[in-house]
Amino acid sequence: MSVSAVPKTDPRAARGDGDLIANIDSTLDVLHGKWKVHLIFLMARGIRRHSRLLECLPGVSKKVMTDSLRALERNGIVERKIFAEVPLRVEYSLTPLGWSITEPLIALSDWGAEHADAVTEARARYETAHSPDQLVA
Amino acid sequence: MSVSAVPKTDPRAARGDGDLIANIDSTLDVLHGKWKVHLIFLMARGIRRHSRLLECLPGVSKKVMTDSLRALERNGIVERKIFAEVPLRVEYSLTPLGWSITEPLIALSDWGAEHADAVTEARARYETAHSPDQLVA
Repeated sequence: MSVSAVPKTDPRAARGDGDLIANIDSTLDVLHGKWKVHLIFLMARGIRRHSRLLECLPGVSKKVMTDSLRALERNGIVERKIFAEVPLRVEYSLTPLGWSITEPLIALSDWGAEHADAVTEARARYETAHSPDQLVA
Repeated sequence: MSVSAVPKTDPRAARGDGDLIANIDSTLDVLHGKWKVHLIFLMARGIRRHSRLLECLPGVSKKVMTDSLRALERNGIVERKIFAEVPLRVEYSLTPLGWSITEPLIALSDWGAEHADAVTEARARYETAHSPDQLVA
């Protein structure tokens, strides 16, 4: 839907909003915590080794990254493989389910790319309208 | 992309992951806090009055709902109108920008509807594989 087209009623409301919202919540739940989105895209680019993933996320602690990978693994998004080598090699990759979640992520990214400026402008307008000066005037 | 089709490389990686992730983060930032998604869909259904919105979210405090509406207003998703009546009537509605964000929300919902069972199964498998019994065995 383009921004200029504002329907009077939303045909999708008929779907049953309860299910719709529950489905959104369960998807957001899988993605919650912003390094998860980073990790998904790093793995989509073919970066698999624990040490390489850590290098690609400067400023993120090993523990935080490991916890995020574990949560993604628990939700079936990531597969963890251990190779019996010296030193032990641990690799992570997206599962088919993990690949599938890149689709809604692209939809979120497209919205952000198209509308981030509008959000920034709205915030500036809001701050101006709600500044202490404005409230006194 | 269907779950059965796992591409060897992701053509979208070429887009520049930095921008892509920044755009996803800015969209998730607007949606953060689960009542916001509820409120967006209630307003998409034409529910506008503050008191009616509150009735539709049982268990949510007036303060929490008002804060969520204010954050949505600040980000340009919601418009707030005050009608000079007795008692004062306050109505909220989606802006064109607000309508536009229903698109990525539908993508999140579609993913949840299609894959929520797979996530639940993955969690059960993970818990079994990582149960204390399994670790001892």
